[in-house]
Parts: sequence; structure tokens; C-alpha cells
Amino acid sequence: MTCGVIGRFDYTSAFQSAVDQVRDEGRYRVFADLKRVRGQFPKAVRRREDGSEQDCVIWCSNDYLGMGQHPEVLEAMSAELDAVGAGAGGTRNISGTTRSAVDLEAELASWHQKEAALLFTSGYVANEATLTTLQSILPGLIIFSDSLNHASMIAGIRNGGCERHVFLHNDLAHLETLLAAAPADAPKLVAFESVYSMDGDIADLAGTIALARKYGALTYLDEVHAVGLYGATGAGVAERDGVLDGIDIVECTLGKAIGVMGGYIAADAVIVDAVRSWASGFIFTTSLPPALTAGALASVRHLKTHPELRDAHQERAETLKRRFAEAGIPVMPSESHIVPVFVGNPVHAKMISDMLLEDHGIYVQPINYPTVPKGTERLRFTPSPNHDDGMMDRLVTAMDALWTHCNVARMPVAA
Amino acid sequence: MTCGVIGRFDYTSAFQSAVDQVRDEGRYRVFADLKRVRGQFPKAVRRREDGSEQDCVIWCSNDYLGMGQHPEVLEAMSAELDAVGAGAGGTRNISGTTRSAVDLEAELASWHQKEAALLFTSGYVANEATLTTLQSILPGLIIFSDSLNHASMIAGIRNGGCERHVFLHNDLAHLETLLAAAPADAPKLVAFESVYSMDGDIADLAGTIALARKYGALTYLDEVHAVGLYGATGAGVAERDGVLDGIDIVECTLGKAIGVMGGYIAADAVIVDAVRSWASGFIFTTSLPPALTAGALASVRHLKTHPELRDAHQERAETLKRRFAEAGIPVMPSESHIVPVFVGNPVHAKMISDMLLEDHGIYVQPINYPTVPKGTERLRFTPSPNHDDGMMDRLVTAMDALWTHCNVARMPVAA
Repeated sequence: MTCGVIGRFDYTSAFQSAVDQVRDEGRYRVFADLKRVRGQFPKAVRRREDGSEQDCVIWCSNDYLGMGQHPEVLEAMSAELDAVGAGAGGTRNISGTTRSAVDLEAELASWHQKEAALLFTSGYVANEATLTTLQSILPGLIIFSDSLNHASMIAGIRNGGCERHVFLHNDLAHLETLLAAAPADAPKLVAFESVYSMDGDIADLAGTIALARKYGALTYLDEVHAVGLYGATGAGVAERDGVLDGIDIVECTLGKAIGVMGGYIAADAVIVDAVRSWASGFIFTTSLPPALTAGALASVRHLKTHPELRDAHQERAETLKRRFAEAGIPVMPSESHIVPVFVGNPVHAKMISDMLLEDHGIYVQPINYPTVPKGTERLRFTPSPNHDDGMMDRLVTAMDALWTHCNVARMPVAA
Repeated sequence: MTCGVIGRFDYTSAFQSAVDQVRDEGRYRVFADLKRVRGQFPKAVRRREDGSEQDCVIWCSNDYLGMGQHPEVLEAMSAELDAVGAGAGGTRNISGTTRSAVDLEAELASWHQKEAALLFTSGYVANEATLTTLQSILPGLIIFSDSLNHASMIAGIRNGGCERHVFLHNDLAHLETLLAAAPADAPKLVAFESVYSMDGDIADLAGTIALARKYGALTYLDEVHAVGLYGATGAGVAERDGVLDGIDIVECTLGKAIGVMGGYIAADAVIVDAVRSWASGFIFTTSLPPALTAGALASVRHLKTHPELRDAHQERAETLKRRFAEAGIPVMPSESHIVPVFVGNPVHAKMISDMLLEDHGIYVQPINYPTVPKGTERLRFTPSPNHDDGMMDRLVTAMDALWTHCNVARMPVAA
């Protein structure tokens, strides 16, 4: 059944070596097979490899506000499923433009105070397709990219093959040096994120925009870990900081705080029209199912008018950070809702994660290379408004016991 | 609100030029805003730009069998939505492995008689991510790619940067010349499709496999327009032709005949494990929502045991081809369920499509560059078992009248 040796090349051994390399580095991934229980999130039922089941509490979901189980979202999805059906049945151009997708794009554009928005099948594809395509649309484009940008941005920037410069993470002095060295009349783009999801720090949006304007560059901001969570209506850090106008292209996801799936950009109508007309990753793919766009639309409308969800979310994150710190658990500095705990070794991170799950029913995934640099392996907690004090008590108690048992360093660690 | 000139560069004009170029070539896309009506597909309600509505019949959907409205699919989706919730909440590795995804992968692997399967967010991503990643896993890989391969395969092959050779479409003699010229001990991969969706022709699978084996190459087959539609259980042309074993990696979609959304590969366990561990487009993206994987699972199980759907589908396609030919409409040669009609000019194709929609309530999208080569613009009809004789009567009558009205060539045209 395996392909084995074909001709003179041993394919099976080559694939096995690729897997072994990952395993040798302690970063082989074993997926936790989970069944969430609607209405009881963050609780879920885990299925072990032997088929047995275990109740657990999820501490590492990106469904930051529990909107994935919100009745308004589920009712909208259910109603659309019942009225329209399952899949979109085609690409946007070939019979796949469903009404709820059109309505959702209008809502998203208005949310970010842009002229237009464009849906993609995921945030990954939104970044990859848009950043690649901008290089075709703007010949000679030079991209300036933050060193900790997400893999999807890196893929998009690389795949277009343009001149690119990586600036040190959140280092505006370095960015300015690079911008100043580039030809004044060349098209330029500064690509960065608002909330960096593995460290939890937040970029200086106003400072970055000012530099971009000074040197004639467009701004491209990834707000996937901020949309729904920051700003008066939840439009992101750009809204919170009052700089929506300074962002030329904003990229977000529908799969984290919004609780569904998909990605999008919002920008000037002409930018969206150009990307829509040129991007292979947009043109040649089946559209999001109508139930997903209807659910996302209901979620966005709810989030715009419910700042108390955002307040509760921030409170939970602050409380967990404080409680970890009080227990001497090395919580990493974070300005956001992300609560990373430093381990520094992939084998230890996996061991602690396995013990939390098996012995305490606490599910938090170890974060290893290539998601974070080697040597900075960590556990990453994402408390939601649904994580109550009792859950937090059990988490902190378990972590404290494991830190002693495994003899892991307790001092606070700088990122 | 538009970004305009920043520094010395006029961004708005550059984006406008990109749009104008598409418009000047007659291939500017205007999306048809559609609301399908569950249970009545292929009927739908179109919303015009002025907000008014029009009933229409969709003739260009890739929901080939109407599974997007099948009660078993919708019930499975609805039940999962109710039990589990909306989104998966994370990547496969970080809290996003839902039980129905695991069960679906097992079902898909068994369908294609492979050891394992791996879900992606779309068929586009499955191709792009897998073909890029194989180049990292197999250093020195040489890829041989059919000249009409889909944009997603081309993107994946290009983005990895390996040595690649394009062989003339379905031309095994040319493929052999290229294979024979490559080093005997280098890893090689032949990438091709079974059903080419814009021409409707079908590759010689057995012949391609024989060549690949002779020259020591892996086979990578895209069956997105065949899965569910060909073979005794619907596993694709490889099943129909009895050559499942000769395909090392099969790539399919859940968004066409299966009626939902998503993509996958199926292969040896070690190949899937390596791709799963290495592919950026797999690792760094939110998983498919549980309702989608549950719906796809129900759809696949239904399709496996209902060959009469496939028979009805083929009958409808054959009947439409015959009726077009009898009316002198230039239907292009097609061995499959795809019914392409040659126009040869993007402006004419769009005009005919617009008149069919506005005057007859018949929706068929013009297919223009870059989906097909310039000068081969066409209308592409995809009759399903739900397109009845009355709908076909109205379609053929309308096409006949338009062909006369627009004075379009009636002779059969070779592809």
C-alpha cells in the first residue's frame, strides 16, 4: 500500500525522514480530538486514541468571546441552512456569490470605515492572496515586513518575489532606516499586525502610520487577533487608537473572535476591485457557504453593540496574568488578552501539556517551532468571558503543582 | 477616503489602471448576487444592483448533483451546529481538531483506498499547500505538470521554486520525452487532473501511471471535478478506471459534487503525516467548522451507495449535448458531464450571458481569461439531475434565438 521505491528513488524513506526530523526536534504534533458541547464552552469532550472519552476545559481556543456558541450566531446559521442549503456551489464569479456574502461585505466595510470589503475562505488565504497580488498590481513594490509577522503574510510576500525588507519586531527606528534607504518614488508597503498572537504585544499603529506617510508607503495591517476585541465597536486596535483612516488595507478573520470561519480585507473600493480582479487565491476557489456568511454577519452585528463582552474578556485575561504571577508561574509580558507562559524547551512544553490534560482535564497546547522561535516554546492561554473563577482556580493550582513536580523555572521571563 | 498620492507615488491611479486593464480586455467580472432556495435548486432568486429581484435557473453551478440541498446533508449540518456550535475555534493543532473532521478523514481515506487523508480549508489550498510542501520534503524534486492544470496547482508548483516541466495537455508522448530527459535518480512527480473542468476532457490515467512508474515518478491526481461523479462508489475516475493503486496522492474538494466546502488529499499514511507536519497552509489556518465536516461526511456516505445519482447526471449531460448539437449550437467536444459552448470572444460571451439572464432568467456565467486562454471564451453548462426537461427546452430555445439574434457561428468547433 505504500509507494516505497519507484525507479531509483526511495520515496517512503524520504517522507519518513521528514517526519522523523520533526519528531527528533520534539515538535511532532498529536492532534487533540475534541467535541465541543454547545452552550457549555469552554468545556469539551476529548476522544483518546483508544476511543475512550474525557471531559476537559479548553484553555487555548481562539474563539475568544465564545461567539461560536452564541444563540444569535447559531440561529442565523440554522435559518440560512434551512432557507438556502449547504455549500455555495461555485466561485464568486461562477454562481457562488450568495446574498449573505454580499451583505456581510457591506457590513465589514462599514465596520472598518472603508469603502469596500472582500471575503476570502480564510485569513491565511486573505493574507497570502492579497500580498502576492499587490506585487502584480504595483510593479516595483517594496514591502517592509515586521519580523514576527504571521506565516500567511510571509508566504504572500515571498510568493510574489518582490524586493522585501524585514524590520526588527515593533522597532520603528529600524523601519525608518529601511524606508529612508529605499528609492523615494518607488511604491512601498508596510505590513504588520496589531496584536501579535504568540507574545501578546501590540504594535504602535500611530507611529507606524506616520512613518509610512512620511516615506510614501501604504499600510497593511493584520488585525486577526484584535477584531471584535478592541475599539468601541470592536473594529480592532485601529479603532481603539483612532487611526482607522491611516490603515490602507486591513486584513481580518471570521474564525477567531467572530466565531465562524473565513477571512477578509477592507480598503478603498478601487483597491478591493483590483485585488478581486487579479487574485488567483480569490478567483479560483469555491465561496464560503451561505450559513457561514450569515452566521458571521449576525456575530459582527452583535459584537458592534456589546462592548461589555470586550470588557469581560480583558478582565479575565488580567486576572489570569495576575494569578499566574502571584503563583510564581513565568507569565510572559503581554499587553493584550493573550497569556503566554514561558517554558523554553519543546519536550518540557509537551510534557506539561500532556500532564495537564491527562491528570487535570485542562487542555492547553504546547506552542513550538515553527509557530514560535526555537528556545521560546511556551504554553499559551486564552481565557474567555466563559472561563469562570472556579476553572481559573483549578488551572492555577494544577500549574503550580506541575511547576514544582517538573522543577521548571519560576522567575518571570522577558519575551 | 481613497489613499490617493502618498509621497511621490499615485497609488489610486495604479490600482485604477489594474482594474481598467481587466475592463479593456472585456473580462471585468460582475458577480451575480444569488439566493438559492433550498429544495428548489437549480432555481434561485437574483438581486439586481438596484435591489429588484428576479427568479432564475442556475446552469453553471459546481453543485453537480444538488447535494448542497440534500436532506441528509442538511440534517447532519443542522444537528452538528446544534450540538457543537459554529466555528472550530482554532487550527488543527491548537484546539481546532473536531471529532467530525477526524471521522471524515477516515471515511475519505477508505473511499480512495488510501491509508490516510488530510483536510484543508479548500481544494485550492490543498493543491497549493501540498505541492509547495512536497518540494521541501523531497529536495531536488522535479515536477511534470499538464499545461491545463488548475491555477491552484500552478501556484503550488511555482511557489516551491523547484525544477518543473510543463507537458502538452494530455500528451503522453511529450510527457515521456520530458521524463526520459530528467536524471534517473532524481525524485519526480507527475501532476495532472482527471476531468479538466473547462473543456470536459478526461486524462489517460493508466497511461500516465505507467509512464510515471517507468521513470520513477510519483503521481499526483486532482479529481475535484470527478469525485462523487465517477466510479462505482463515486471515488473518481481512478476508481472508474480501476487504477486507485497507481495514484500516490489524490486531491479532491468537498465543495462541488459533495455540496459543502473544503478540500483534502488522500495518500500513504507517511505522506499525509509529512505534509501535515510541514505545510504552512495547513498548520497556520483555522479548521473547517464542525457543521461542514459533518455535512460532508453525510454527503460522502450517501454518494457511495447511490450510483443512480451518477447515472442521472450523465444522462442529463448527454441529453443537453445532443440537444445543443441538434440546434446547431457549437457545443465543444467533451467526454464528461461538462457542456462547454464555444463563443471565442469575451465581449460576445458576456453579451449572450447577460441576455440569457435578463431576458430568459437563465444564468450561465461567461468563462473568460485567465480561467481559459484568450480566444477560447465560452459558456459552460453543468446540468444536474435536478435540471428537468422543461428547463432544458427553455434553455435550448433561448440559445437558438440568441445565436440567430447575435449572428454567432453555429458550426461545431474543436477545442
